[in-house]
Amino acid sequence: MLSFSERLTEAIQRTKNPTVLGLDPKLEYIPKKLLQQWQIEFSDRDQFIEESLVRFNSSLIESVHDIIPAVKPQIAYYEMYGLPGLKALERTIGLAKENNMLVILDGKRNDIGSTASAYAAAWLGKTDLPERQYAFWDADALTVNAYLGIDGIKPFIDAAQEHGKGLFVLVRTSNPSAADFQDLELTDGRRVYEVVAETITKWSKDYLGHDGYSPLGAVVGATWPEQAEKMRHVLEHSWILVPGYGAQGGTADDCAKQFKKDGTGAIVNASRSLICAYNKHSDLPAEEFAEATRREALRMRDDLNNALKERNLLDA
Amino acid sequence: MLSFSERLTEAIQRTKNPTVLGLDPKLEYIPKKLLQQWQIEFSDRDQFIEESLVRFNSSLIESVHDIIPAVKPQIAYYEMYGLPGLKALERTIGLAKENNMLVILDGKRNDIGSTASAYAAAWLGKTDLPERQYAFWDADALTVNAYLGIDGIKPFIDAAQEHGKGLFVLVRTSNPSAADFQDLELTDGRRVYEVVAETITKWSKDYLGHDGYSPLGAVVGATWPEQAEKMRHVLEHSWILVPGYGAQGGTADDCAKQFKKDGTGAIVNASRSLICAYNKHSDLPAEEFAEATRREALRMRDDLNNALKERNLLDA
Repeated sequence: MLSFSERLTEAIQRTKNPTVLGLDPKLEYIPKKLLQQWQIEFSDRDQFIEESLVRFNSSLIESVHDIIPAVKPQIAYYEMYGLPGLKALERTIGLAKENNMLVILDGKRNDIGSTASAYAAAWLGKTDLPERQYAFWDADALTVNAYLGIDGIKPFIDAAQEHGKGLFVLVRTSNPSAADFQDLELTDGRRVYEVVAETITKWSKDYLGHDGYSPLGAVVGATWPEQAEKMRHVLEHSWILVPGYGAQGGTADDCAKQFKKDGTGAIVNASRSLICAYNKHSDLPAEEFAEATRREALRMRDDLNNALKERNLLDA
Repeated sequence: MLSFSERLTEAIQRTKNPTVLGLDPKLEYIPKKLLQQWQIEFSDRDQFIEESLVRFNSSLIESVHDIIPAVKPQIAYYEMYGLPGLKALERTIGLAKENNMLVILDGKRNDIGSTASAYAAAWLGKTDLPERQYAFWDADALTVNAYLGIDGIKPFIDAAQEHGKGLFVLVRTSNPSAADFQDLELTDGRRVYEVVAETITKWSKDYLGHDGYSPLGAVVGATWPEQAEKMRHVLEHSWILVPGYGAQGGTADDCAKQFKKDGTGAIVNASRSLICAYNKHSDLPAEEFAEATRREALRMRDDLNNALKERNLLDA
């Protein structure tokens, strides 16, 4: 069985693109003309919601699956639409996999003991049923929050190890108030987020794959390039999921600092700048919103690859 | 509109019980005889899961609604059963409300900006649909994780304020490895969890209700009574949700330390010791598992009230 890291590396090499497509499909993000048509087509509210979200995601996936290796649905945007939203999430996961894209679920889950095991079974592993086990959501990776310590992380590592999946632990997030608690200074001069990163590396040592990566990835925002560069060295066995490119102010060069010398080890997320790219392409009819996403994805790929080349992190 | 704090106070006074029933219904927790009957009754897997979870929860709610003021479904235990599990969660929330119980969802959600807003809309507030707003899950309170700072908490406060709901922020959890990050010592001698608690009190000042409580509650485990006593003083405007009673080793007196002098301000969770109480009552037939829960709930109520009386925190 290949590890998540090995599958991610393969997918990035195939698409020549270390980007992940954030699938955060609020109804407001769908071109108004289409949404109005679908409202007429589906008079049932729940069906309208589910089909609208799935159609939007499905077009995006079909449009970019050959040039983007992974999707990252943020679970909040599906939970906010209740059961029809979660049905759309289930179908979106299936569509992404059918199109050979990896699925990183952004849920920032966290709990302890048997509850953390329940989350791990839910999203990465399998659930015990009376006569067999079943993988309900079956994502490839999940974001998690480590505030509860190793008790809260170990069950996710176990599920990841057993099923070839991965996790991304929050280290330094991209938002302005990340500093509130993550930057608190300890008696030995370290910051809280640095301890989290060092602890991830310590935990990783028992789970190293052939490629030197463990299933324990990390989230480090592109908006704090100085900290991010330091984190790349500390998180020596981790893939880094990088939010904050584009809209939040992170540049391609900021992101490039999070890659290893061999050009692996980071994957850069873009959500709204990709899924709402049609707002910038008024030449395209509403039906072709996904073509705008493809154009923007190609632009972002060039932007990232150029930044990597400038730092000599990419082969010709 | 009454605040969450006011509604919680009323419910605790009505039931004379500061307990919350943790509804974490794994199929393994259902009496085997019943589960086997239901497997025969429902040949469809998804229907079997949904109906089993709902029947189990429904019996428990009906059995204790007059002596327990609130339920706390842990979302992980529903997500692990996929869509049928989440359908059971939706029905469970409805059943608890019909029976006049408050619903505290334990989801430990966390994110930033528009994503935190999406979670807040999902679980506490309302979601924008093209022609109106709709409250999909409509819980009374939600547990949240503050690692991302105020950006990640403010949207939940806003939803709570607007809809008379509450939140409980993780401060000091009940598990052994809580110390990994929560106890890190800062340059000024404080611990990380103390800063989180002080920050909650600072944030609370702008949202105080008539009773002196803000919608910002806190989670402080019963397993660390020394820290908990200190936290009660720091968290002056917060209700405290107390996990760790019973199975995890917290005593009634440990819990009593988390109440204010007027006997308000804390609510003690018990999950497995209540929902699996039938394991200790072999005199009852399997069908009457909920009667065992009622007996254990009455015992726990007496235990807590005696501890409160001994500390002079309860009127006669």
